[in-house]
Amino acid sequence: MSLRDNLSSIVASVDGAMAAMIMAYDGIPIDEVVQPDADMDLQLLSVEYTTILKEIKRAVEVLKAGEMEEVSISTTRTRIVVRVLNSDLFAALIMKHDGNYGKGRYLLRLKGSTMAEELS
Amino acid sequence: MSLRDNLSSIVASVDGAMAAMIMAYDGIPIDEVVQPDADMDLQLLSVEYTTILKEIKRAVEVLKAGEMEEVSISTTRTRIVVRVLNSDLFAALIMKHDGNYGKGRYLLRLKGSTMAEELS
Repeated sequence: MSLRDNLSSIVASVDGAMAAMIMAYDGIPIDEVVQPDADMDLQLLSVEYTTILKEIKRAVEVLKAGEMEEVSISTTRTRIVVRVLNSDLFAALIMKHDGNYGKGRYLLRLKGSTMAEELS
Repeated sequence: MSLRDNLSSIVASVDGAMAAMIMAYDGIPIDEVVQPDADMDLQLLSVEYTTILKEIKRAVEVLKAGEMEEVSISTTRTRIVVRVLNSDLFAALIMKHDGNYGKGRYLLRLKGSTMAEELS
């Protein structure tokens, strides 16, 4: 299954999913799948969340808390789950606030390792 | 139930919980309960995570993604769940990596609103 197929399958399987993407820490998307009716600025979102992830990565190193694995950010409108794939890349799933957060987390973890292998 | 009792009850009820605290966005802890065997620098952790939360809050505002509600950060060693209580305060639960994340999230949400009322 290609990278794009994996991302599509996550978006299709998770209720409320709006987009799934693979990103590099420099803010450049490697690949992405967006629901046609998703109302969001994906580029701005990528830039903002990449900045946050770099800040978290730095803090985790300062705290000697091991390696960063997953970050979730919920707001009154959206839920975002980010899964670290390797030292360069991460996968992100953006859901509506009432999306299936548990299934989203699970699928991102499951398919994250497959996608990381494909990219290594 | 006092603030301290609420925090103690969360730490006692969640397997793998190491500490629970109420913090202000200026990095000052309002109250905290730490397991005696918890091996961590809580002060450094508070400072680092407060910086991250402020960065996330800023990004959420830029993205017009509603109000920040909850942030989870998992590393290979720890899991941290942060719940926003109001515009000044948040509650945080720090668990071991294999701690009961679902129960931790649930209790923090449940008791978060009680604690917010007590502080308002």
